[in-house]
Amino acid sequence: MTISETWLLPDGVADVLPEQAQVVETLRRAALDFLAVRGYQLVYTPFIEYIESLSSLSESNQDLDLVTFKVIDQLSGRLLGVRADMTPQVARIDAHVRPIEGVARYCYAGTVLHTKPQNFNATRAPLQLGAELYGHDSIEADVEMIDVMLALIEHTHTLDGAHLDLGHVGLFRSLVKRAGLNKNTENQLSDLYQRKALPELEEFTKDLAMGADFYALGRYASDLDALQTHLSQDILNDIDFKNAFDALKSTLTQIQSRWSNLNIGIDVIELRSYHYHTGLMYAIYAPNRAAPLAQGGRYDGIGEHFGRARPATGFSCDLYALGATQFVEIETIVAPKGSEQDLLKAIADARLNGLRVVQLLGNDDLSSVPYATHQMVSQNGQWVIEKI
Amino acid sequence: MTISETWLLPDGVADVLPEQAQVVETLRRAALDFLAVRGYQLVYTPFIEYIESLSSLSESNQDLDLVTFKVIDQLSGRLLGVRADMTPQVARIDAHVRPIEGVARYCYAGTVLHTKPQNFNATRAPLQLGAELYGHDSIEADVEMIDVMLALIEHTHTLDGAHLDLGHVGLFRSLVKRAGLNKNTENQLSDLYQRKALPELEEFTKDLAMGADFYALGRYASDLDALQTHLSQDILNDIDFKNAFDALKSTLTQIQSRWSNLNIGIDVIELRSYHYHTGLMYAIYAPNRAAPLAQGGRYDGIGEHFGRARPATGFSCDLYALGATQFVEIETIVAPKGSEQDLLKAIADARLNGLRVVQLLGNDDLSSVPYATHQMVSQNGQWVIEKI
Repeated sequence: MTISETWLLPDGVADVLPEQAQVVETLRRAALDFLAVRGYQLVYTPFIEYIESLSSLSESNQDLDLVTFKVIDQLSGRLLGVRADMTPQVARIDAHVRPIEGVARYCYAGTVLHTKPQNFNATRAPLQLGAELYGHDSIEADVEMIDVMLALIEHTHTLDGAHLDLGHVGLFRSLVKRAGLNKNTENQLSDLYQRKALPELEEFTKDLAMGADFYALGRYASDLDALQTHLSQDILNDIDFKNAFDALKSTLTQIQSRWSNLNIGIDVIELRSYHYHTGLMYAIYAPNRAAPLAQGGRYDGIGEHFGRARPATGFSCDLYALGATQFVEIETIVAPKGSEQDLLKAIADARLNGLRVVQLLGNDDLSSVPYATHQMVSQNGQWVIEKI
Repeated sequence: MTISETWLLPDGVADVLPEQAQVVETLRRAALDFLAVRGYQLVYTPFIEYIESLSSLSESNQDLDLVTFKVIDQLSGRLLGVRADMTPQVARIDAHVRPIEGVARYCYAGTVLHTKPQNFNATRAPLQLGAELYGHDSIEADVEMIDVMLALIEHTHTLDGAHLDLGHVGLFRSLVKRAGLNKNTENQLSDLYQRKALPELEEFTKDLAMGADFYALGRYASDLDALQTHLSQDILNDIDFKNAFDALKSTLTQIQSRWSNLNIGIDVIELRSYHYHTGLMYAIYAPNRAAPLAQGGRYDGIGEHFGRARPATGFSCDLYALGATQFVEIETIVAPKGSEQDLLKAIADARLNGLRVVQLLGNDDLSSVPYATHQMVSQNGQWVIEKI
């Protein structure tokens, strides 16, 4: 391999240089502090774990398993996975390491790795920040989570022009159950819904048990009232369906009243990470961006893998994506060489005020610091900082 | 695998729970802010890279290669390494991505992974924080680096009882060159020095070219004056040896004058990461701890692998180790359910002041938050916070 190639990075992986790193660092701190004062306790989860521990979500969801890098543990000879998602790790902590009776709130921020980008142009090493609420199986908990997600985006980014999508996997799931569909048909339907392929859906549902209901779910996916009008009494009276429908409606009402200026939409067939989630799902989108700024949902029972099933709801986002449109200019002050007390004091004082000061080395002059923006100069016996 | 086993973590890997995570998070911020005001610019480096890029240091040092986890890139079919050290990555940035003429200062903080623990009981996933100075081949640059390292430890930890070790690989290296030793003999000697095995060294050096000098180097490794008395004129007049000797002596003097209360020792045969370093080496030790709190040294020419050889000096430390003896108590205030304006305002005000407030959900009472330390109660129409 030639020198010119050694510095190329793999696709979907990037250096974050000072100007952008500063933005992300500031975002990271602001987000974690924001979550802290809301009672979400910070945890650092390990970068590698036995693959069995990481796959608590992937028993029903091969997606996570496919994106997880695997390595052999040279100490135990066992297979390790590099975390591709921190949620299963926090679930493990909630279930076993710190098994609190009652409600537990956790937050985290760290790099996760994916073998393949999750969307077109996506990074393979997002800086995942998230918050999770364990131990409360209520709409109130979901509403708190959505509320925190929106407030976090407002606090660290902007909600201008943003769009909140609400859904609930319980509608589709209870309909599948009532119709008695097999797994294969369920997956085909789920695929048609995700592709929003209405003509195909119409064709596909023609001869299907409760086909009219499946078609209505797709046709009126974003309008709960119209959906209700077009569904059969059979499914409307199904207790699981009814609970999911009412939960979605109630959440919509509560979020609307708290965020009256926000553009909120319903999508009952947005089934991303459908196998993962068990209830309400939410995602917040910025204008002109395909991937959501943050997304989450309910995933009850996740701790079962670790011997303690608990209700859970949470969201996550990629801090790199959140910081992508933000910029800072870094100011650097150059101070002359010397160890006179007044100079050293002027440098120390500036640093105490958070200013970045570099003192010249050897015979260097200002040109040795090409990114300098200011210099410290002596004026009438005083050290002052002036723009270059 | 049974449930009870799924939550076990691999050796040398751990969860960091809220109380400790808070300590490490605070340390991380304090350290990065400390480095920022000294002009060290933050970079985030990628978690995975092509193995060729990561091995810039390991061409002459198999150690790094051995501790690096390797995975296959499913996109390119090439071999990737998970970073085991961030220094080669920063060198790549300095050489290629951001090739500044003049002096560049960088800092970083992030998890690195090791296939095997580096010392007895060491973590395999340290949170490496470091600072690097590129483009200055002077004792002044080394002194700045040592000074920053000491001030950082003083700022984020304590220097009470700490011990600074100074060395210089140039002494041993120039002696090897002058004596014309082959690689095998050099490695055997290096091993004897690291084991501080004086009797064996005496035996080994008896019939060696310049053996008396090699023995003196080991025998008087911590006393520059005694060493000088016992070395031959031949090596004392060697220009490379003389430069290294003078650099070490001058550094010692300068650091002594800046840190007059610090316990400083010389060790010219402490050859840890000997292949890696090219000049001055430094490490700061806390009392009763085998592994250094922070360590570094000069490693000129590292960027050559990327097409731009540059003088470089820097240090790093593990924030987990630095935070291991520090503790915080996390206070959590529980507020009652309700959406009355005065209650919501009291909660918002407390959060603005950095206090952690959890509002009860559903029919929960205080017992649902077993880690609560305070509660918000109404007293004479005012919301006040009281200890539980």
